Parts: sequence; C-alpha cells; structure tokens
Amino acid sequence: MSNQVIHIQFPDGQQQAFTKGVTLTEIAQAIRPELRKKAVAGSVNGTIVDLTRPIMEDAQITLYDASSKEGIEVIRHSTAHLLAQAVKRLYPHAQFGVGPVIENGFYYDIDIADTLALSDLQQIEKTMKQIVRENVQIKRREVSRNEAKELFAHDALKLELLESIPADETVTIYEQGEFYDLCRGSHVPSTGKLQHFQLMHVSGAYWRGDSDNQMLQRIYGVAFATKEELQQYFVFLDEAEKRNHRKLGKELSLFMFSEEAPGMPFYLANGQILRNELESYLRNLQAKYDYREVRTPLMMNQRLWEQSGHWDHYKDNMYFTQVDDQSFALKPMNCPGHMLIFKNSLHSYRDLPIRMAEFGQVHRHEFSGALNGLLRVRSFCQDDAHIFATPQQIENEIALALKIIDEVYNVFGFQYSVELSTRPDDYMGELSLWDQAEEALENVLTNLGIDYTINEGDGAFYGPKIDIHIKDAIQRSHQCATVQLDFQLPEKFDLTYINEHNEKVRPVVIHRAVFGSIDRFLGILIEHFGGAFPIWLAPQQVQVIAVADAHQDYAKQVVKALQHEQIRVQLDDRQEKLGKKIREAQLHKIPYILVIGDRETAHQNVSVRRHGQQATVEYSISQLIEEMTEAIKLKSL
Amino acid sequence: MSNQVIHIQFPDGQQQAFTKGVTLTEIAQAIRPELRKKAVAGSVNGTIVDLTRPIMEDAQITLYDASSKEGIEVIRHSTAHLLAQAVKRLYPHAQFGVGPVIENGFYYDIDIADTLALSDLQQIEKTMKQIVRENVQIKRREVSRNEAKELFAHDALKLELLESIPADETVTIYEQGEFYDLCRGSHVPSTGKLQHFQLMHVSGAYWRGDSDNQMLQRIYGVAFATKEELQQYFVFLDEAEKRNHRKLGKELSLFMFSEEAPGMPFYLANGQILRNELESYLRNLQAKYDYREVRTPLMMNQRLWEQSGHWDHYKDNMYFTQVDDQSFALKPMNCPGHMLIFKNSLHSYRDLPIRMAEFGQVHRHEFSGALNGLLRVRSFCQDDAHIFATPQQIENEIALALKIIDEVYNVFGFQYSVELSTRPDDYMGELSLWDQAEEALENVLTNLGIDYTINEGDGAFYGPKIDIHIKDAIQRSHQCATVQLDFQLPEKFDLTYINEHNEKVRPVVIHRAVFGSIDRFLGILIEHFGGAFPIWLAPQQVQVIAVADAHQDYAKQVVKALQHEQIRVQLDDRQEKLGKKIREAQLHKIPYILVIGDRETAHQNVSVRRHGQQATVEYSISQLIEEMTEAIKLKSL
Repeated sequence: MSNQVIHIQFPDGQQQAFTKGVTLTEIAQAIRPELRKKAVAGSVNGTIVDLTRPIMEDAQITLYDASSKEGIEVIRHSTAHLLAQAVKRLYPHAQFGVGPVIENGFYYDIDIADTLALSDLQQIEKTMKQIVRENVQIKRREVSRNEAKELFAHDALKLELLESIPADETVTIYEQGEFYDLCRGSHVPSTGKLQHFQLMHVSGAYWRGDSDNQMLQRIYGVAFATKEELQQYFVFLDEAEKRNHRKLGKELSLFMFSEEAPGMPFYLANGQILRNELESYLRNLQAKYDYREVRTPLMMNQRLWEQSGHWDHYKDNMYFTQVDDQSFALKPMNCPGHMLIFKNSLHSYRDLPIRMAEFGQVHRHEFSGALNGLLRVRSFCQDDAHIFATPQQIENEIALALKIIDEVYNVFGFQYSVELSTRPDDYMGELSLWDQAEEALENVLTNLGIDYTINEGDGAFYGPKIDIHIKDAIQRSHQCATVQLDFQLPEKFDLTYINEHNEKVRPVVIHRAVFGSIDRFLGILIEHFGGAFPIWLAPQQVQVIAVADAHQDYAKQVVKALQHEQIRVQLDDRQEKLGKKIREAQLHKIPYILVIGDRETAHQNVSVRRHGQQATVEYSISQLIEEMTEAIKLKSL
Repeated sequence: MSNQVIHIQFPDGQQQAFTKGVTLTEIAQAIRPELRKKAVAGSVNGTIVDLTRPIMEDAQITLYDASSKEGIEVIRHSTAHLLAQAVKRLYPHAQFGVGPVIENGFYYDIDIADTLALSDLQQIEKTMKQIVRENVQIKRREVSRNEAKELFAHDALKLELLESIPADETVTIYEQGEFYDLCRGSHVPSTGKLQHFQLMHVSGAYWRGDSDNQMLQRIYGVAFATKEELQQYFVFLDEAEKRNHRKLGKELSLFMFSEEAPGMPFYLANGQILRNELESYLRNLQAKYDYREVRTPLMMNQRLWEQSGHWDHYKDNMYFTQVDDQSFALKPMNCPGHMLIFKNSLHSYRDLPIRMAEFGQVHRHEFSGALNGLLRVRSFCQDDAHIFATPQQIENEIALALKIIDEVYNVFGFQYSVELSTRPDDYMGELSLWDQAEEALENVLTNLGIDYTINEGDGAFYGPKIDIHIKDAIQRSHQCATVQLDFQLPEKFDLTYINEHNEKVRPVVIHRAVFGSIDRFLGILIEHFGGAFPIWLAPQQVQVIAVADAHQDYAKQVVKALQHEQIRVQLDDRQEKLGKKIREAQLHKIPYILVIGDRETAHQNVSVRRHGQQATVEYSISQLIEEMTEAIKLKSL
C-alpha cells in the first residue's frame, strides 16, 4: 500500500493532513505531547474507538481525557479488565461472565471455587496496581468465531457469550499481556492509564440475572478521573451512610420491616406523623388548587385491568386474588378506578377540568433482591391525580400542575430539573394529536421560563410527559413528580363529555403526581434532611428537660402550654443526668430542646437550644410559641 | 277418666282450681271474658303453648295478648300460616318450604310455577282477609311419621323437612279448615285473631339457603298488635326510605359502587370530605388521649395468620394472594400487625400503657347477597386500636376508652346503650384471669355510673368485652364501638415487658374501636342526619347565589372571604332562575344558602337561609364567618 494522505478534522473545525493509518495517539502526540498523555480514548466520525485504532480515511475526530463522560467510561471499562487480569493471575482457573460499567465504576462476574473475602479483594487490588506499574499494552484484535472458540475453550461462560454475538458482528478480543477477553471495547491503550480506582465489595449474582442459573461472585469497584474525585466519592459515601434512611429509620423509630411482609413498610408512630403531615399538607394544597379527592377500592376485577391495558403491560408485577370465583387484581395504579368514577356521571364542557386526586395505596411486585428500604417497596401510597380536560385546557392544566409541584418542592428546599419526553417509536394514537400535545408541553415550559432537556422518544406509549428530577442535599438526583398526557385511557374507557355544540367528544387525561410515592419521597426526605426535619414535619418538635426535681412542676406547665398550641412536645422526666438527657434529645434530632432550671423557673422563662446549635437563648413562653407556630405555619426550613 | 282437679297459679301468685284438661281459653274466660278475647297465646310452666292445649296437671300459667313480645311472635307465625292457606286456595299445586317469624313480620317460601307479581300479592292478601272473616279454628294434632308422610306425599319440600325432625321429637301438624301444615307451633286459636298485617314484597330464595338447590319465591309480610302500630311502621318505612344512605349517596354524590369491585365503595369527592373529617376528628382526639398512630401493610404472610388464630377462625372470609411463591393474606384485622410492632422493641413497665391506633383498611369476604351499601361491605377502614397494658392498668384504660367513645358519640347526638358480654363456654385461658377481667369491666362501668346489661356467655373466646349500641334518629340500633380484653394474643405472640422487679411478664391487650368501620359508621351517619350533615361535616358548607349578573362581583368577594377561612363554599353562577337555584341547594342539603341581591350588595351584607328553615336573616360577612367557624370548631349539631 502506498502512503496516502487523509484529512483529519478537529472539533474546532480545523483540519490537518496525516498519513493514512495514523492512530489517535499519533495525532495527539503531533498536536501536543501533553494531549497524548492525557487522552484515554477518542472518537472517529462519532464512534468511540481505541487510541491505537488506525484511521484509514478522512475523518472528524475528538480526543477524550479522563474528565469527559466518554473518557471516564472507557477508564471504568478498562479497570474491569484490569480486575479480571489480576483475578486470573491469582486464580488461574477463574472463568468470567460480564464486566460492565456502572455508576461510579464497574463490576465483573467471576466463577471461582473460593468464596472471596474482603482480604482477597485487597490482594486482588494489590495485583491490579502491580499490573498498572507494568503498564501493559492493551491491544484490540479481530478474530474469527473459530479462533474465538479455541481461545475460550476452557471458559464456558465466555463461550455462551460468544454464541450470543449476532452473526453479522465482527468478534473482537482485547489482549493485555497474558490476559485476553472477549470484548467490543473500547479501552485505554495501556494499564498505566488506570490510576484512581478501588475495589468496594463482593456479592452473589446469578449468571445472566436468572435465578435458575449458577451463582457467580460479583466484584464491584469504582474508578475516577483524579485522586480528588476518588476521595470525594468516599466522603460522599460517608455522608450518604450517615443519612441512610434505613439506619435513621431505626434510630428515630420511623418505620420497620418484617419478614412477614417483605417490601411493605410498617410505619411506627414517628414515621406516621411524617406521613400524615405530608399527606395533610398536599391535601390542603390540592383543595386550594380545586382538586377533588376520591378513594377507590384496592382491588378490582381482572377484566378491568384487561380493558385498561395493565394486564398486557404489567401483569407480571401485579398481585391477584379470587373473589366469588373471579380473578381480582390488587391495584398497581389508580387510573382505572378514576376512569370508572368519571364514567359514573354525565359531564358537560362546563364541568371540565375535573381534577381528581387520591392518596391511593398501590401494590407492585418487585424482586426481593431489588427491595431497598422505603426507596423500593412492594406497596406504597401514590399521591395520584387525573385531570380530565378539554384539549383547549391542556396548556393551562399542565402549567397549574407544574406550579403545584414547584410550590411543594420549594417547601423542602429541593432544586429540580425538568425533562420533556417525546413520542416513542411504539406510540399509540394519531400523529397530529401527538404533535399538538408535544407542542402544548413545550409551550407551557417556555411560557413559564422553565429550562428543560428533551428526551427524544422517551415518552410513554400513550402520550408525552414531563418528568421532574429533584436534587437532594448531597446532590443525588431522584425522579419524583411526573406530568403525563394520555390520549389512550379516554379511548379505552370510552370517556366523553358534551361540548359547546352539544356533541359527545373525548376529554384528555393528564396523569400527575407530586411526591410520586409518599413512601419513597419520605425515604428521600429522611436522607435529604439527615433525619433533622424542619419543625413542621418533626415527629417530636420539643423536648422539655427539667434540671432537677424542683423544676418538674414548672416544666409540666411549659409542656401543657405547648400542647395547647398543638405542638408535639415531651417531658423527659427520667432520673438521668442533664447532660445525658440533652445528648439523647440531640441524637433524636429534636428541633427544640428546652432546659428548665432555677433561673428559668424563677423568671418563668425557658432556655432554648435549637438542633445543631450550641448556644442557648432565653425565651418567654409566649415568644417561643409565637416563633414556633410561625415556623410551623410557614413550613420554614 | 274421672274429673280431677288441678291447681293453676297465675303470674301474680294467686291460685285457682280447675278441672283437669282445662284449656287456657277456658281459664281466661273464667277469669274475665275480656281476657279471653285479647289472649292470643299462653305459657304453661314456662313453655309457650296454644290457648286450646288441655292442661293435665298443676301448673303456672301466663296469658299473652298481642302487645307482648311472646304474643306478637305467635301472631306473626300464625299469619305466615294464613298466608300459606291463602296461597293454597289460589294455587292448589303450591308446595311450601319454611315460614318463620322475622323482625316486624314473617315470610313463607313457596314453590309454584307462576312468577308472583305485586298484583298477585294483593289477591293473596284479599284471600287472607277472607279467611280471617271465616274465623277458621286452628288445631294442633300429633301425628305418627307415617301419617305425616301420607299427608305431605305431594309436597317434596315438607317431606324433606319431616326427615330432618329428630327421631325423639313428636311430629305435629296444625290444621285450619282445608289447610294443614307441618309445624311445632304455637298458634292463635282461630284466624279471626289475625288483623293487622300486610304483605310487603316477593323475592327469590334458594331452598335451605343453598345456591345449589332450587329457587323458591319468598313472600314477605308484616304483622302488628294494632292498626296504629301497623300505620306507624309504614311511616317509619317512609322515613327510613327518605334517609336510605344508598339513595342519599347517589343524590348527594357521596359514593358509588361498581360491578368491577362489588362490596368495595368508591368515595366521590363529597363522600371523601366526610371520611376525611371523621378521620381527622378522631386522629386529633386520639392524639389528645395519647394514642400513637401507626400504619401496617395490607397483606402479610399466611403463617402470621396461622400464628394469630385468624387462619383457624376466619380463613373462609379472607382473601389470599401469592408473593414469591408463598401464600399471603389480605388483612381482615389489624391485630397481628400491631403485635409485630410491639415485638419490634423492648418494653419496660414505664412505657406502658402503649395505645397503638391505626386507620386500617381491612378486607373480609361477604356473600354478594349480604352486601348492603356502606353497611355491609367487603373492604372497610377500621378505626382500630390496641392498648398494651399491665394488668393493673386495665380498669383505667377501659375507662379512658369508654370516655373517648362517649365524647365521640355525643358529638353526633347519638344515645347509646352498653352491653357487657362475659365468658363463653369455649373460653380460652385461665378462669382466674377471666374472673379478674370481668370484675374489672364491671367495676369500670359501675364507677362511671354507666347502665349496662349483661350478655351472659357472649364474650369472645379470648376475653370479655363491652359493646356499645347507638340509637339513630329513627330509633334504630347499631352496634359500633367495642372494647375487648384479650389474654390470648399476648400469649400467641409471646409479648413481654420488664416489670418493676426486672422480670419478663405478659402485658394485656385491649382491642378498641370507636366508629368500628368508618364506612359503616358513615352509612349510619347519612341515615341518622338524613343527609343534612352538621356544618363541620357537610361536604359543601355554603352555597352563594347571586340574584342577577350585577351581583356576581360582590358574590365572588363573599366566596373569597369564606374560602380564606377554609370554609367549603361554591358559587352557583349558572344562568338559571333564583328559585331553581335555591331549591337545588336545599335538595343538596347545604347548611347555609347565601342569597345576594341589590340590598345585600349595597349594604355589603348577605342574606342567610339555614337548611330546613324558611326565614332568611341578614348578616355581615364577619358575623357570618364568626358564627360558622364557631359552629365548625364546636362541631355543633
């Protein structure tokens, strides 16, 4: 082959000529050696490739360092291979399943006889670092299927994976020293590029996620672009562990679980106060926004779920029971019940919009392994609403729904981002209606000045939707609220109203949730506030502590005065030391601790210690009540 | 036989000699002919007998007229026979099932080819009256089984009943003219004694209540002692029909049912406001009484229900589903969940009593034929509580439970009576504990000065109980609240607390409900108030009506002012006549109708028409708000 020239175009639009077959590493080196050192991968005409892949024609390229989304993904993938190589050195008989990239890192599923302990992970990590020091070259090689079969003749799992590669796809392996793996890539050019990783833990995982298959050992690790990011991650983990809602749920007696009902929370008295406050807050707010609250049965005939489409799309997650020899399903959603209520009476355009809300307890099956405290449960209470509207009312109703969501999230100090998900490939209904609906949603967001990103094709099959992602106090993102347009349910339930021209026409249905699941939202709140709830939510708002017996009478008067104002207050009258009582009240994260000794009794005052503050401030009882009732009323943070 | 003398003793203790073989009729005649005329039956040595039965030995007797409980029962039974005789005259091929006495009357199950219409009932009633005029003698006759078989050879149903009479029991028939019936008695001496009856309706009924058997026609009738009582009964029926909660539920848009969930109410917006008010009222009251509200899952593993005893005693009324290949039951009661919560932590005597409350949605299967609006459902919300107490605390806790019940029932204007049900034959646990518990309950009732009746042997198998029966506005009785002592659950769940001597001992559990079922209580309330709820409960508290367009602006101001005080108000701004608007608001039983015309707009006042009153009274808005918020706060009737 003759040395041909190809033209390489950079992201800034500039072009440069190189010899055909040039690699990204060589290009980077040509531009600036510094760039070569930092680069971990690149893209050629939009496809991520290894830095060592020869470029054979004119192309647009981008180089990625570890700080980019693409770069860190390649690093995490290569670290998974590094892990496998180290395991193979230590356990020569090891066989390997899959080793994908996940949030913050990677895992690899491994089949070895030994059960790995944490000390084994340390040994593996040590070997990984040794291989990094060796700076082993990582090479991509295209192989025939027969060659691949020979290479993995002793690895049943890899052979199975090989079988599942489509016939028209090129099979590639990646080699690094004595180790090779079946892999699509891409990877860093050598192990020396892998620096800031750590193995985390090991757990069991069924081969291909199927509980009928053999159990493998899954080793989890994390990898970051810099040492600082890795350290920050551990700080974050510490903080997250301190705020872990399952841990705080126990410490603050908020909720419990029992093996008699896995995934179904038992709310203890303190947790139930939180639930009631949340529910009552939203109930009153919804009344202000002219919602009408209803309550529908927890189970309904299977034929209703067939009509609604849940049977087709959702039956594997539903629970069934027999009533009068017919199959009934526990409701996984409230929609069909609300449709029945709408159909129960005739409607004129003058009655619309009808905003129908329910705090509906739904049941949805989850695998036991997926359960996670209040965040992933099998039964939860949805703050569900369905708005029945004329097509002309869509924009206004969406705007009102977003307004109530904004109001609620501000109360908790949540920042949030908005995503608009549009028509998916398998959409149902008329294209023109979809166009109209998507335009309506975009108009609303634009008119309200809300920044949003578009998730092209990610809408529900029945209509486009707006999802709201909140950011909690340690910057984790949670999808809670949703506003969804639905053209299908009105069809399926043959809903109608009489329009201005005395014609029967279809309303539109808007699904809307603010908390989403009260249970999950509560789990998020516990972690967001680290258990130190704002006073309006706090299960116990005040702890009164008398310094000595002589102060008990006055302490009881204070308690009565606060109770009279519906403030949740307790008197700690145990025979314990003052210091211990204060410490325990602080551990319980009670917003106000009132200490009552000689001076307070003499002045008929109270010394107030706010949660998280060292200083005590003296208040008259009426001042204190005023401050607290105001904070409760305003839901101050 | 020679004429022997026997001695008859009357209820007042006096004695008189009669010839052996004398009948009650003859005795009555001998005392006073008036007495004979009024008597319909009597008792000899405590057994109810026909007036014509010869008395063969010394005896204590009582004569019953129609005004007595015993007398009216005999009349109703004889009226059932009268009905059968009339049917047989009109439909000679008729066969007869059973014809028992029920509340206010009787029914008879009949097998005839024709389907009976109301006009047929009129014809039957006419024939009954004819037979009354004939004053046919009613005679008792003891027969052999063979004779009975011959007599009823053409009546398959009676033959079947004959088979079921125990071998050692004498078979008797009652004859009246051409008609005879297999019957134990007793009956009036002749059809002339049957005067104040009316046939009501006819419905289908399976032979012996078994849906595998043939369907018979059941004719219902009522019978009373006097014409006035019969008339009063129809007045009562009218009143009950006006108050029928299913009818009012529709008219006032409170709730609905669907064939997709039989027996499981759907609460519409108005009904849900009622539910929320009831729940919120009791929640706040319970907080005052130091209850702690919890929330437990709606389904739990079957083994838990086996442990609690529900499986043995209640499984036919429970719904089951599969979770992870295990059988789970929807909870029919909240007790086991609360036991799990108690067991979740250690308890000292200092923590007791623990008053654990839940608004728990339970599911219990009922036959579809037994369902009755909100009064008999398959799913309802219990205002359940379990009090975990030391034995020494029982009396005080029962007293407090009765106090909260009294407080709640007074708010609704319910009078109530109290029943104490004691140890049943199949009791569980130690006799001494039972004695102690019954004594405790009696002590509490006596100390509180509460009148009560004792239901000997009617307690639950796990402990004695106090049931409260409320009387509604039309004097119907409903059992709602209950307070039950339970020694068994603490055993079954091995509940313990640490006592003063550092020993592990068993607490007592007290089950307690005030409303019982919120759904059923709501049904009772709807009928009690006839849909005209006190203002604090009323789904809509105020209707504002502008006389003309010119008054709309001011009317809207009024609405805003009331809304600001959380008053549930609507403006009727339809283009309808004033009279129609007022009439409709009255039909919806809205407590306050505000009419706004020229004068009200000029004076910035409102004219107030209270529900059920004709007069309108002029109020300033602030006066009105003051009156209404006060009435809402005080829950005035």
